[in-house]
Amino acid sequence: MGERQDTAMVDTAIRTSVSGTTAATVEVAPSDARIDVPALAHQLLGTWPEARLASRALAAKPEMQRIEGQSMDDHRDRVFHQLKLLVENGQVLKAFPKRLGGADDHGGNIAGFEELVLADPSLQIKSGVQWGLFGAAILHLGTEPHHDAFLPGAMNLHVPGAFAMTESGHGSDVASIATTATYDPETQEFVIDTPFRAAWKDYLGNAAVHGKAATLFAQLITNGVNHGVHCFYVPIRDDEGAFLPGIGGEDDGLKGGLNGIDNGRLHFTGVRVPRTNLLNRYGDVAEDGTYSSPIKSPGRRFFTMLGTLVQGRVSLDGAATSASALALQIAITYGSERRQFNAGSDTQEEVILDYQRHQRRLLPRLATTYAQIFAHDRLLVKFDEVFSGKADSDDDRQDLETLAAALKPLSTWHALDTLQEAREACGGNGFLAENRLTGLRADLDVYATFEGDNNVLLQLVAKRLLTDYSRKFAKVDAGALARYVVEQATDRAVHSSGLRSLAQTVKDFGSTARSVSQLRDTNVQRELLTERVESMIAEVATKLRGANKLSKQAASDLFNAHQNELIEAARAHGELLQWEAFTEGVEQIQDPGTKQVLTWVHDLFGLSLIEKHLAWYLIHGRLSPQRGQAVSAYVDRLIARLRPHALDLVEAFGFAPEHVRAPIATGQEAQRQQEAADYFAELRASGDAPVDEKTLTKKSR
Amino acid sequence: MGERQDTAMVDTAIRTSVSGTTAATVEVAPSDARIDVPALAHQLLGTWPEARLASRALAAKPEMQRIEGQSMDDHRDRVFHQLKLLVENGQVLKAFPKRLGGADDHGGNIAGFEELVLADPSLQIKSGVQWGLFGAAILHLGTEPHHDAFLPGAMNLHVPGAFAMTESGHGSDVASIATTATYDPETQEFVIDTPFRAAWKDYLGNAAVHGKAATLFAQLITNGVNHGVHCFYVPIRDDEGAFLPGIGGEDDGLKGGLNGIDNGRLHFTGVRVPRTNLLNRYGDVAEDGTYSSPIKSPGRRFFTMLGTLVQGRVSLDGAATSASALALQIAITYGSERRQFNAGSDTQEEVILDYQRHQRRLLPRLATTYAQIFAHDRLLVKFDEVFSGKADSDDDRQDLETLAAALKPLSTWHALDTLQEAREACGGNGFLAENRLTGLRADLDVYATFEGDNNVLLQLVAKRLLTDYSRKFAKVDAGALARYVVEQATDRAVHSSGLRSLAQTVKDFGSTARSVSQLRDTNVQRELLTERVESMIAEVATKLRGANKLSKQAASDLFNAHQNELIEAARAHGELLQWEAFTEGVEQIQDPGTKQVLTWVHDLFGLSLIEKHLAWYLIHGRLSPQRGQAVSAYVDRLIARLRPHALDLVEAFGFAPEHVRAPIATGQEAQRQQEAADYFAELRASGDAPVDEKTLTKKSR
Repeated sequence: MGERQDTAMVDTAIRTSVSGTTAATVEVAPSDARIDVPALAHQLLGTWPEARLASRALAAKPEMQRIEGQSMDDHRDRVFHQLKLLVENGQVLKAFPKRLGGADDHGGNIAGFEELVLADPSLQIKSGVQWGLFGAAILHLGTEPHHDAFLPGAMNLHVPGAFAMTESGHGSDVASIATTATYDPETQEFVIDTPFRAAWKDYLGNAAVHGKAATLFAQLITNGVNHGVHCFYVPIRDDEGAFLPGIGGEDDGLKGGLNGIDNGRLHFTGVRVPRTNLLNRYGDVAEDGTYSSPIKSPGRRFFTMLGTLVQGRVSLDGAATSASALALQIAITYGSERRQFNAGSDTQEEVILDYQRHQRRLLPRLATTYAQIFAHDRLLVKFDEVFSGKADSDDDRQDLETLAAALKPLSTWHALDTLQEAREACGGNGFLAENRLTGLRADLDVYATFEGDNNVLLQLVAKRLLTDYSRKFAKVDAGALARYVVEQATDRAVHSSGLRSLAQTVKDFGSTARSVSQLRDTNVQRELLTERVESMIAEVATKLRGANKLSKQAASDLFNAHQNELIEAARAHGELLQWEAFTEGVEQIQDPGTKQVLTWVHDLFGLSLIEKHLAWYLIHGRLSPQRGQAVSAYVDRLIARLRPHALDLVEAFGFAPEHVRAPIATGQEAQRQQEAADYFAELRASGDAPVDEKTLTKKSR
Repeated sequence: MGERQDTAMVDTAIRTSVSGTTAATVEVAPSDARIDVPALAHQLLGTWPEARLASRALAAKPEMQRIEGQSMDDHRDRVFHQLKLLVENGQVLKAFPKRLGGADDHGGNIAGFEELVLADPSLQIKSGVQWGLFGAAILHLGTEPHHDAFLPGAMNLHVPGAFAMTESGHGSDVASIATTATYDPETQEFVIDTPFRAAWKDYLGNAAVHGKAATLFAQLITNGVNHGVHCFYVPIRDDEGAFLPGIGGEDDGLKGGLNGIDNGRLHFTGVRVPRTNLLNRYGDVAEDGTYSSPIKSPGRRFFTMLGTLVQGRVSLDGAATSASALALQIAITYGSERRQFNAGSDTQEEVILDYQRHQRRLLPRLATTYAQIFAHDRLLVKFDEVFSGKADSDDDRQDLETLAAALKPLSTWHALDTLQEAREACGGNGFLAENRLTGLRADLDVYATFEGDNNVLLQLVAKRLLTDYSRKFAKVDAGALARYVVEQATDRAVHSSGLRSLAQTVKDFGSTARSVSQLRDTNVQRELLTERVESMIAEVATKLRGANKLSKQAASDLFNAHQNELIEAARAHGELLQWEAFTEGVEQIQDPGTKQVLTWVHDLFGLSLIEKHLAWYLIHGRLSPQRGQAVSAYVDRLIARLRPHALDLVEAFGFAPEHVRAPIATGQEAQRQQEAADYFAELRASGDAPVDEKTLTKKSR
């Protein structure tokens, strides 16, 4: 049949295309390729393997793990107690200064933190609130006296703390929060006030029950001038857990997940804190009320302050990726054992992972998870460079923020999508709480909107891409710009964080990709993915050109009319970053068998992206209809080829049974299958088996 | 700018294209169009408005509603008590015979049933277990003596019952269940046995706690012959709730949702029931053990029996659609009040539903929900015709099953997608349990895999489409078939349930759709959507041709290599059915303003489908790249045009505050916004407002 010939052709193409690409060094015959699982597992641990392994050892302990079905109150108590165990263990304190018992290890700290998601996402997030937000605000926004005064209590959990930034009325738009901190020179105190209900601090972990202090963000007002959002250290409860005078609050109550965390609301009426409780690294008020700051521009100051808190986004990217890997470990293990329907045989039923549709549901998501693991490590290295001071220029910080803002949305959405697909792929078993998929999904739900709403983050990325683009073309008139969109520049190395260079012009590209086999060429994939980001940004930039001459409202309307395109461009940029990281990861593999299989996984990721956006490639003439059709054929072929390696690929995630914990992924299903098969074999052998009516019907004809 | 011109062109096109299409009677200027909300609300109630309204009145009562955060045990007790209230109310018993207190009203019964999802999905599903599965099995698989003996207890809840079909080892493949019912002529009893662990009945509602009997499916064996799966009435617990001799079980425990239902497992060892407990409508065993059936073919008999239980799928389609509507009611109300960022103004922040991306997230899902409401009513009418006997030929039954199998997957997936998008669109507020989105999503999760796994159902639809196709071309050789795929027949009215007729050939189509304006022409949309289903099926049929000459394994492999394509074809078929129902619905509207707005909603649905599958249309030459790009431009334009009608469109769903119950959809947010705005206005008027540092910086320059 036609399709079978296509498949054979694709096979040949795959072998042929090996030369001249990443896979050039591979000399293993496809059918013989085997993954060196321990070596790959080690590589996937990334730049801080010891930190990850130590954290996984913690997560393997029953006392650190979630108990499904606990009441909200019991769950909160349990997680709070687990935080004390983390203090004893000490690893979560790595990012703090050595002189206070930390290790000044920023990258290793986050690497370890995010593995806690395997024990309980509530534990990961509540730890994140205490040390990654409350503690980190003191560390990064405060100065040495604050470190000495407040960090020990934050670190040893004597002072559980809330990170009081978000208000009921303002989440994404932090600059517009309405809580005020007005300096009173007479008493040398700041007076904290909540002017109306929408300015209540909201959704704060540790605020409902456990918090004794807060790092509170408020508009700093002194001498009649509002200097914008600053952070203050504010005690909120006494040792008996009662609110201090002027402070009130509410419990946020039951949530869709993460119920081990006591989220709540806080409000302040005339609450006074000493002048020195202003965390004054980026802005200070003298005794007489004079404001000073090392950063002149209020806007830049604000973004610098917020930028120190990027670690939340970084760690969500890692935790979401770990959760996706866990979901696939469960679903692929179950899918390799579960059997249903016997289309191809009279006695043996099919393993469900042998169905093409089942492969289509799980294997591209596996490929994306691999890409994310590599991309996350790159993000973490960047994070470490900035926070260790190895490379912390303004540009470095902005690049880090753009990278985090591009990757966190993709990985957190991917986690929800993968957990859901894994749940459905495990059928009724997937819906049982004991198999963990529903609970993890419920917990990770909010990862898509906290620490930066995913859509808002992607818009930030898009604005950065537009800025990079307009810098390059600041002096080019609109006509040149329009031509640029059509003609494409030959070399467009624009910016490290932003637009990527194209090795070839569109015209050249049209000819180089003439053969379908080249879709698997790494350079062709790079060109296709890069070209798309660049063109999307260039198109929108052209449409927005002149917006600065419009009224504020008209400019805003114009921008809004292209908001969806912009966000899609940012998504394409994030996908490209993931693909590039994966490409680098594959290049580092030494073992030929592993490299061969990972090259397929890498190609599956790249081609799945191209398949997802195929309409764009067709409309923009980057792929002919014939080549477009070949993309899906390749994806099908790669999926079939990867099927035998699926179990190795999830084993390489390195999860122990104590991390997986889902009964359906323990071999239980295979054991049941065997018991049933043995029963029928014995029955047939006994001669007592009833005759099937269908057989009789056939005979009687 | 280019885009602005495009938009203007689209506007003109929209006005121009009105003539000659569904919208031909509309004479309202677009800007003046208003929805007659009460009239539309009535239309959306469908064919059984009274049943829906009566059920909604029930769902509005606090005692029928879910309490978020209840423990599993308390929730189970509450829902069981609610079932007793339903008995008192009597509406849920409508489908049963008049002589036993019912009303022989099948359509009205389901219409009412599915509205219970507004109170608590656990209530909807537990009712479904008792009356839609357990009771319906007695009704449809039993005969008059069974009705007399068993229906009263099932109806009045004196005998809570489990529907014991699924086993741990077999869910989708019911024909392979392993529980046996062996006839013993000496005692004239059936002996029920569970041969191994995988044959335990599993996931059965009412099995863990409340069930006193079960309609149990087992392989019927008599005189050494297995006659396949039949249903038996089997008492399982005594009046004190203890298992009867030979019966054991387990609680399925906590689930990802629907925890108001006591799902559990059952196993049977030598359990004896009287011969007359066989529900014998489609197969009987005489005293001497002789088997007889009105349906000779064991295969057809099996599918006939299963077919009587289609109402589960039908009601899930309706309930999932209601839940989607509720989610949109919440998110669109909140999105119309919530403000964030002030890009276009210095003082007033933007309402988030005014952002293009926010509209893109919610309005196409609103359009799909509308399409589903119309499609569901059509399904319900078909269901009623079959079960009332008005039109219950074999073909009618098969059409009903195909329709249900096509619509249920789409609507249940849509519900999960919409609940999640609505959750994210409401930010942190959406994650609070009180706002219901997370709880509804958790409950509806399993709708995607129970009563027929969605992927398995779509495969059934695809096989039906293939069968219809091959019947038509049974005598055409492969060469003719191949030509058919390329050339397309002029008229292909194939089958009422299946392939649709095309008014024009591909060539003609190429010319008729030359103008982008015609994308909004109903006939053009119909052609595009129909063409895609037909071509996809024809392509796969061609590839599969000759499979019957292959070995069983080879044929199975060939089929598997195209499984994904087939399932996508079935999805396309389902989408077409929804679009057609929506088209009919719009045609019935009398009020010009309502008709105008609903025409836009309809077009948004149709064009969103075409946009989703744009790559297919481009690859297959059905749309040129230029026209392909116009699709997205149209969608953007329609979304902007529908924005002012969004609140009317959700109001027309007709939910009372007692159905919505989410605090964020009660005006709370608008009230907070007003309070904040008043505060700032007063502050500005007072002259005491602090000066913004940014303002000072600008002045000092």
